Amino acid sequence: MKAIFLNCTLKKSPEKSNTDALISKAVTLYKEHNVESEVIRVADYKVAFGVTSDEGKGDEWPEILDKIKKSDILIIGSPVWLGDKSSICKMIIERLDGSTSEQDDETGQYPLYNKVGGVLVTGNEDGAKKVSADLLFSLNHSGCTIPPNSMAYWVGKAGPGPSYIEANGDKHLFTNMNVRFLVSNTVYFAKLLKERPIPTNIHKLTKEAKKESKS
Amino acid sequence: MKAIFLNCTLKKSPEKSNTDALISKAVTLYKEHNVESEVIRVADYKVAFGVTSDEGKGDEWPEILDKIKKSDILIIGSPVWLGDKSSICKMIIERLDGSTSEQDDETGQYPLYNKVGGVLVTGNEDGAKKVSADLLFSLNHSGCTIPPNSMAYWVGKAGPGPSYIEANGDKHLFTNMNVRFLVSNTVYFAKLLKERPIPTNIHKLTKEAKKESKS
Amino acid sequence: MKAIFLNCTLKKSPEKSNTDALISKAVTLYKEHNVESEVIRVADYKVAFGVTSDEGKGDEWPEILDKIKKSDILIIGSPVWLGDKSSICKMIIERLDGSTSEQDDETGQYPLYNKVGGVLVTGNEDGAKKVSADLLFSLNHSGCTIPPNSMAYWVGKAGPGPSYIEANGDKHLFTNMNVRFLVSNTVYFAKLLKERPIPTNIHKLTKEAKKESKS
Amino acid sequence: MKAIFLNCTLKKSPEKSNTDALISKAVTLYKEHNVESEVIRVADYKVAFGVTSDEGKGDEWPEILDKIKKSDILIIGSPVWLGDKSSICKMIIERLDGSTSEQDDETGQYPLYNKVGGVLVTGNEDGAKKVSADLLFSLNHSGCTIPPNSMAYWVGKAGPGPSYIEANGDKHLFTNMNVRFLVSNTVYFAKLLKERPIPTNIHKLTKEAKKESKS
Repeated sequence: MKAIFLNCTLKKSPEKSNTDALISKAVTLYKEHNVESEVIRVADYKVAFGVTSDEGKGDEWPEILDKIKKSDILIIGSPVWLGDKSSICKMIIERLDGSTSEQDDETGQYPLYNKVGGVLVTGNEDGAKKVSADLLFSLNHSGCTIPPNSMAYWVGKAGPGPSYIEANGDKHLFTNMNVRFLVSNTVYFAKLLKERPIPTNIHKLTKEAKKESKS
Repeated sequence: MKAIFLNCTLKKSPEKSNTDALISKAVTLYKEHNVESEVIRVADYKVAFGVTSDEGKGDEWPEILDKIKKSDILIIGSPVWLGDKSSICKMIIERLDGSTSEQDDETGQYPLYNKVGGVLVTGNEDGAKKVSADLLFSLNHSGCTIPPNSMAYWVGKAGPGPSYIEANGDKHLFTNMNVRFLVSNTVYFAKLLKERPIPTNIHKLTKEAKKESKS
Repeated sequence: MKAIFLNCTLKKSPEKSNTDALISKAVTLYKEHNVESEVIRVADYKVAFGVTSDEGKGDEWPEILDKIKKSDILIIGSPVWLGDKSSICKMIIERLDGSTSEQDDETGQYPLYNKVGGVLVTGNEDGAKKVSADLLFSLNHSGCTIPPNSMAYWVGKAGPGPSYIEANGDKHLFTNMNVRFLVSNTVYFAKLLKERPIPTNIHKLTKEAKKESKS
Repeated sequence: MKAIFLNCTLKKSPEKSNTDALISKAVTLYKEHNVESEVIRVADYKVAFGVTSDEGKGDEWPEILDKIKKSDILIIGSPVWLGDKSSICKMIIERLDGSTSEQDDETGQYPLYNKVGGVLVTGNEDGAKKVSADLLFSLNHSGCTIPPNSMAYWVGKAGPGPSYIEANGDKHLFTNMNVRFLVSNTVYFAKLLKERPIPTNIHKLTKEAKKESKS
């Protein structure tokens, strides 16, 4: 079993990332469940803007997408900027959305079908639930199953202030609870879907839908 | 197996509801999967504003919540008003959120754990994806599992115009495809979760989280 | 000059409302600018669900709308519930949207044209910026002008916790700064628009638009 | 008087941009009001990810920001991707937000104070209102005044389909009306604010706020 994290901080390595600190919590917990983790800091890659799985010349997204395809659990980690996900996070959503056109010949399922999705968010203040709603929707749209409590976050109170690391967010009970719920549920569903993959045939259902449609 | 639909139109029966027309499609499809459906038009009930499972004196939400608890699949249907879900829909979200405090004695799971969630949206124009993101997030937060493609919608092009029924939205291929994906996937997961319920123990994980937390 | 506040708490009077406590700050500041305030707790009125300016039989919205029409500044106050505005707040938005069909015979302007809009939000945690974005958009759509910094809010850190009153939010510098910016800017624009109302003729521009349109 | 447009399409020149086609409508209308327009296709610039006004080495945002500072009207144009603004659009929001720390020595106002903001959105389907709410909020947060009807958009009906250019969106009455309202109102407010700039003193109000605050 493998979990892949896309850390969508705007900062390149080796700059300190608060989102990375929260991700580390989840990595430790996945290890206890014998799930191997890989954390990708997207800012360290040359990911092209676009809405396909390969934008050509120098685009490093295909390399990341390949790792996602080989994973069972996909967690997007995003900072909050002006109450919203980061631009790098939106860039990733656009690329993941592009993958839905790579349908399986037989079932028509997208590459992310049978994978489990989750979200980790950190910000110095307000915006985590909006970020989560957007990300869970996008993951779901791209084929991921979303188990209950599939998001965990830390934000401080209204206005400027310390972020996760500086504020000792790692000692915040609410966040520590939710990371555990997320890890436990994503592992359970990943195992379940490995054993019992979704049988839905997109091609067949599309054919049926055409019978009662005009446009 | 049972599916329950909460139709959050602002109109009381017997006024014609576009959302109801889209819901009917899903009801027919569920029947083919031997899943029984019940459609509740929330506007016909006296649901109190509030954030608990019972707001007392005349509140008819407990009756609805009881039906939800006895169902396997929960589909929220909402119209789009000014690019957002209906106020009745938000009222329902607040009440569902309140149910998370009714935790199972042993597992700590909320009443909606092991249920499967989905969304149906109709509007004469723009807003369905925002409505869906908000609703899937809320269902997920309240304990529901969200299978891939767990939303279907119909909207017309920018600006005033005919709604689902008048515009023959029932013949729109994209919508007809997505209702099928939603029905197929929600039925699959409902069966899977009935057979293999989520084992996550919220109480135990909370206890563990407390060990590494201060606040 | 008159400011009207719609407090969209879910609680009826005389229950204590955190949003009301933040509104009180603004009321005091408006007084210093010689602006008279009226605070309406929507939950105390029988406002019907709907999307017109008068839903008939027992609907008390027309009474509120009348007060809004006689005001220069309209501030919507909302609590945060599950990261979103309250259902009562969404209900108000739907009714305000309905007012746009009451166009001025000559100019075609809606009743809220030349009024100034702003937002106050309180929650125990995360969601204020999403609420504000939704509300400012809706106010703007309905005709209000939105001056810079036209929102102020207080929320605590991630997870359950004390709300504005209990947490002494009234001593929070960030919130106190922003209420002042909001009051100062809304008063300035309200005076400016009284003196120099927007000349835009909706009817005339619509006629022009028709010349280059087909649908 | 000058209007600047930031076209946030993901495509570089000379690829055809639907958002650009809608922007052209506004440019023509501004010309009739003797307002000069400059359209910047952000994808053609090397804009760095970040939240400051200058991210150093090769960052071309300072050049764009400089043009914005010299303009009276700022219009953000964005395509819709998966029901949301483009990643390039979010990148621009992060950079504009960064400009709020460049406060005027005397008044404390941000560079975008006294500028007027608006939004143009195109997509093949659903999402324009969400994009607009996010963008108007962000522009407002960064100092812009938002006049009534400060957004215009075109989207097709639910699901894949032709975009603005291919669908002859330029003949769509609703969109053509709203572009006119946007242009007329932004020009009016830009002139008004040039003549009667906002007097609010951020420094002074902050000092006052500190007197009643603890944190």
